[in-house]
Amino acid sequence: MSAGTIIGAATAPTQLIQGKKATYAYRRFGHGAGHPLLFLQHFVGTLDNWDPAVTDPLAAGREVVLFDNAGVGRSTGSVPSTVSEMSSHALDFLDVLRIDRCDVIGFSLGGMVAQQMVRDRPSIFRRMILVRTAPRGGDDIMHLEKHALAGPLNDPTLTGYAVLQKIFFAPTTSSQAAGGAFVGRLSQRKNDLDKASGPDVAAPQMAAFREWEQYTGPRFADLRSVQQPTLVVNGVHDDMVPVSNSYRLSENLPNAVLLTYPDSGHGSLFQFHESFTRQAAAFLSSDSPFAPY
Amino acid sequence: MSAGTIIGAATAPTQLIQGKKATYAYRRFGHGAGHPLLFLQHFVGTLDNWDPAVTDPLAAGREVVLFDNAGVGRSTGSVPSTVSEMSSHALDFLDVLRIDRCDVIGFSLGGMVAQQMVRDRPSIFRRMILVRTAPRGGDDIMHLEKHALAGPLNDPTLTGYAVLQKIFFAPTTSSQAAGGAFVGRLSQRKNDLDKASGPDVAAPQMAAFREWEQYTGPRFADLRSVQQPTLVVNGVHDDMVPVSNSYRLSENLPNAVLLTYPDSGHGSLFQFHESFTRQAAAFLSSDSPFAPY
Repeated sequence: MSAGTIIGAATAPTQLIQGKKATYAYRRFGHGAGHPLLFLQHFVGTLDNWDPAVTDPLAAGREVVLFDNAGVGRSTGSVPSTVSEMSSHALDFLDVLRIDRCDVIGFSLGGMVAQQMVRDRPSIFRRMILVRTAPRGGDDIMHLEKHALAGPLNDPTLTGYAVLQKIFFAPTTSSQAAGGAFVGRLSQRKNDLDKASGPDVAAPQMAAFREWEQYTGPRFADLRSVQQPTLVVNGVHDDMVPVSNSYRLSENLPNAVLLTYPDSGHGSLFQFHESFTRQAAAFLSSDSPFAPY
Repeated sequence: MSAGTIIGAATAPTQLIQGKKATYAYRRFGHGAGHPLLFLQHFVGTLDNWDPAVTDPLAAGREVVLFDNAGVGRSTGSVPSTVSEMSSHALDFLDVLRIDRCDVIGFSLGGMVAQQMVRDRPSIFRRMILVRTAPRGGDDIMHLEKHALAGPLNDPTLTGYAVLQKIFFAPTTSSQAAGGAFVGRLSQRKNDLDKASGPDVAAPQMAAFREWEQYTGPRFADLRSVQQPTLVVNGVHDDMVPVSNSYRLSENLPNAVLLTYPDSGHGSLFQFHESFTRQAAAFLSSDSPFAPY
């Protein structure tokens, strides 16, 4: 890169670090007064799936850390088939980076991993952002056999990012246009790319969703002990992780604000990235013990 | 008032204006670049029930207009028993003030009136804020016979604002403390007070709630044609107008953002007034055709 190039999701070099359980691929950039912000990725997503329009504005106020869990992208090991094991890897990763307290943004599967991490080690997060995700025992999580999802996923004319445009965005002109812009932003990164995820990633991650739907004891009771101020975000039309899961999160987490976006599905934070990053930055900048910001 | 007194909800003089249908009491203060902001009040609330911590920060960017509907406070006429007639009065009031386009914040019953006004005259509002309210055909609206509400309402040891503290705030230490602060702020206004509402206000307003629960045709379909950017706000623990009603609003209004607050009931915007006014001001300051801000 030439001098003066702004480092962001499209340009940050991929780094590798040896943990106790695996070698992890990550990208780290940005600076500011805030705590580091860990980004936990969605189903089959790699480091290359982070939208610069989401990561880079947040990197203006803090260091952001993008992370491939075990077996994803260039991280070694096999992909775990439970959220609990994914949490264990993510904590191992933070340990070798010597990060003992940070903020987190968990997206879909990544939001489940974030919830598990804060149960496994309550001190790890200062503030949490849970985007289009679900609590343990949530409803209708990532059933890709559903018509709205099975169509695009099995359509041979759709490949690569075009699949994401179809399934992450609502079937409206405005949402699909936003999806096109999203794909354009992801395509800005030309070099140092992760390996795209295949069935060896998808299959165990789907198994992890199925396991996450199971619960014992009173439903959602495990959320009541999470003290971290939390911002829950969802689009109101989400076929992959229905918005009702975000309702249950914000109703049962004792210290959560819910924000929902219109006309947008699983990709809501990419469609309304200016609003989302403004809201997320305001939330993260607060030092209040209460979630409202 | 002495020179230099800041005019706000605690001090603004009550004015009267003759409409076609009644004489209306109102208070008007604030200034700035924004459109005027009409405040539509909750069940049995008068001009005196507006929290200065909510009205006054918003008056820093625009003129705010607090309004007693017919038969409430010092407005003449009898209290209508339908939301539709309340809408008709509110439009009459705006007509005599020569306000043909404004923003609105409707609180509970006032949010229902706002929804009806925008159906009756779609051009009237630029942006709408609907707080702890319900769509036509909503669920479990203001059933005061419920245990959580009937207790405080029938408790002879609770009078005046103490009833509001009990029923507007969640039964937690932090929420009840916020309720005490709320009552303290309302008590700042010492003079030029409205007549408190009695059964002649409560009975027809309760009838209006019952009528508002009725619907014909596909449920919530009437919301699909509302184009105004809308901010929907609720506390997640609301016995008076359950948060599910806000979910239905934000799912069916085509251009709405939902914001929910934790640990707070029907008085959420009073408990988290700093957050609420910051969010509301950001929403109102936006000129985007989209609700996200």
